[in-house]
Amino acid sequence: MKIERYKREHDHSYTLGATLTFELMRLRPDLALRVFICSDTQMTDSTKELISLCEESNIPVEKNNKAFNILSPKGNCYVIGMFKKEKQKIKEGNHLMFVNPSDAGNMGTILRTATGFGYKDIAIITPAVDVYDPKTVRASMGALFHVRVEYFESIEEYRERFDSNNRYAFMLTSSRDMEEVKAVSPYTLIYGNEATGLPEEYASFCKTVIIPHSKEIDSLNLPMAAGISMYKFSRSV
Amino acid sequence: MKIERYKREHDHSYTLGATLTFELMRLRPDLALRVFICSDTQMTDSTKELISLCEESNIPVEKNNKAFNILSPKGNCYVIGMFKKEKQKIKEGNHLMFVNPSDAGNMGTILRTATGFGYKDIAIITPAVDVYDPKTVRASMGALFHVRVEYFESIEEYRERFDSNNRYAFMLTSSRDMEEVKAVSPYTLIYGNEATGLPEEYASFCKTVIIPHSKEIDSLNLPMAAGISMYKFSRSV
Repeated sequence: MKIERYKREHDHSYTLGATLTFELMRLRPDLALRVFICSDTQMTDSTKELISLCEESNIPVEKNNKAFNILSPKGNCYVIGMFKKEKQKIKEGNHLMFVNPSDAGNMGTILRTATGFGYKDIAIITPAVDVYDPKTVRASMGALFHVRVEYFESIEEYRERFDSNNRYAFMLTSSRDMEEVKAVSPYTLIYGNEATGLPEEYASFCKTVIIPHSKEIDSLNLPMAAGISMYKFSRSV
Repeated sequence: MKIERYKREHDHSYTLGATLTFELMRLRPDLALRVFICSDTQMTDSTKELISLCEESNIPVEKNNKAFNILSPKGNCYVIGMFKKEKQKIKEGNHLMFVNPSDAGNMGTILRTATGFGYKDIAIITPAVDVYDPKTVRASMGALFHVRVEYFESIEEYRERFDSNNRYAFMLTSSRDMEEVKAVSPYTLIYGNEATGLPEEYASFCKTVIIPHSKEIDSLNLPMAAGISMYKFSRSV
């Protein structure tokens, strides 16, 4: 198998770093394909533990410095996992929905926070960032292996399956303070693109809400708005 | 004046980008030194408005492509402001405190969120990231020009001036759910380093609190923990 820089069309992706690769082997050994170890890695207890996890699951461990030059040219990464991507389907229940999110690091932070507050099912409306981008996988700190992410081509495609979810759309044009809203399960919290927010039409089929903030900033950043509202709604059920 | 890549010891820093430079000229023209415009910038209305703001404040505007090669080698930046750094003192009132924060982007996101929730006075215990790092300035989206940031060499130095503030320390070892705490003003919300958190000793002179999250993640990331708690405490006064 040739090692190439990650591309969206590949059927596999990478966990860059020892901790992240450990999470892969611990949570989803069924997805793991191979583990690369840099020849100058020190054989610490945690490296040995990782290798024994790989042995248990019959995952080959290779010393392969070339893989590091290709996949982590900036260095400071001594273990890399290769894993197969999985086409997932979200389940019924409370959902998060991101419409055209574009930043890989932001999406990783969002997956980590979602896992922290118990949101397991994440709908993404395309065009959108690839959650299997190694930057997202890394920023998620392994949370990607705890959630289900499903891509939809349109809101209509999503509504065909989940139209009974109550929809709460975060929009700066809303006049409804999030604090005054009690989300009724099953619900979907909906967030727009980092730069452009949600299209106005979402107001016609969602209850719009806002997290009030001072006029001195234009908006909260996307992971922050998502994290604060996930916290709020996960606590007020 | 020679243009060099930003270093901490410089007495000036940079706003990389048109929107950010606009914020500088709008909010703190007294700090502005010069504005550089890339020769292939289009003269849009907002560029013209920026130039007229500079003229009003007698700030020289220069076409200088060399500045862009040095300060923004990756490109996609057509306007740069140069401004003088200011040694600030925080005022009495509610504070945020960050103990040894290390990530420039995180600190910018924190300043943006702090501005959004009305926290204007930010104490940082060194060693710590430089808030004038252009990466922080950029991630703050201009919020740096709305807040006061003061560095302290130790918690003792801070307590000499602000010992009467009630201290709430965010620690993963705490068993006190943030939701059960009503912060009494004036107060200080205290957060540790991204990787190591707060030293245990903080529990001896602070009320410790935690934002409960699932065991599937080790912690929330620092801006997220700070943002969620700023939101909570700014809303519950």
